[in-house]
Amino acid sequence: MKHQSIGRLIAILHRQSQIFINKTLKEFSLTSAEYPFLLALFHAEGQTQEELSSYLYIDKGATARVIKALVAKGFVRKEQDNQDKRCNRIFLTDKTKREQEEIYTCVMQWNSFITEGLDEGTYQRIFSDLQTMVDQVEKKSIPKHTGAK
Amino acid sequence: MKHQSIGRLIAILHRQSQIFINKTLKEFSLTSAEYPFLLALFHAEGQTQEELSSYLYIDKGATARVIKALVAKGFVRKEQDNQDKRCNRIFLTDKTKREQEEIYTCVMQWNSFITEGLDEGTYQRIFSDLQTMVDQVEKKSIPKHTGAK
Repeated sequence: MKHQSIGRLIAILHRQSQIFINKTLKEFSLTSAEYPFLLALFHAEGQTQEELSSYLYIDKGATARVIKALVAKGFVRKEQDNQDKRCNRIFLTDKTKREQEEIYTCVMQWNSFITEGLDEGTYQRIFSDLQTMVDQVEKKSIPKHTGAK
Repeated sequence: MKHQSIGRLIAILHRQSQIFINKTLKEFSLTSAEYPFLLALFHAEGQTQEELSSYLYIDKGATARVIKALVAKGFVRKEQDNQDKRCNRIFLTDKTKREQEEIYTCVMQWNSFITEGLDEGTYQRIFSDLQTMVDQVEKKSIPKHTGAK
């Protein structure tokens, strides 16, 4: 019987991660609300706010607030799109590029923290089970905020 | 190699859940930031803000803001502790008690959504793997905000 909620455990793990990552990123003046955007830009620079919002499953309002904060703190900069003048694309600043490796390492400490002691097989099994659930949600096309993934 | 991040998948699943649950709870004028507090109070009424903050891994500032919103919207009420006059305990209003079952069902739809099609054995395995990670964090005593769990 599915009485024990997997959804609840995911929520707890996520909130635990926020506390942990807020602590590890403090030295960079980054918060747990902000780092996902940097990670997405480490992966692919020059995304629009709408693309980031959609990719990260974070609503447009929150995305706009975080990007504004990241610009103010000098982590990212906006650049007008060549084709569409109304559209801004987000890029990493040089400062962020210099710190990129360290920031990424700090965030990944959480992954190491929760999976410490797991053998490779167990790790892969958990990863694959979670990926299946993420894919399931994508396939059932949970309404995304906007734009392409 | 642990290059594929379990932490990242948990974050994605959590953000997907927020979009899903915000939608299912809209008819109750409840947000994804608020429902965890109601669920904790369904489980045990009369907790203090500090206890809720600690139990849910949500920081004290955010907890205070959400409780204030829940009081304003008539979902919970504060009651002065008998022993410690400076301490408030949070209780469900009659309106919330009447809606409790429905609210709970709405939240649990997310669990059904992500686990649809899983056989009982797989479900239990995922639950148990996630529980192991939650316990691991608890055991390593990630600094909690305050108070007893």
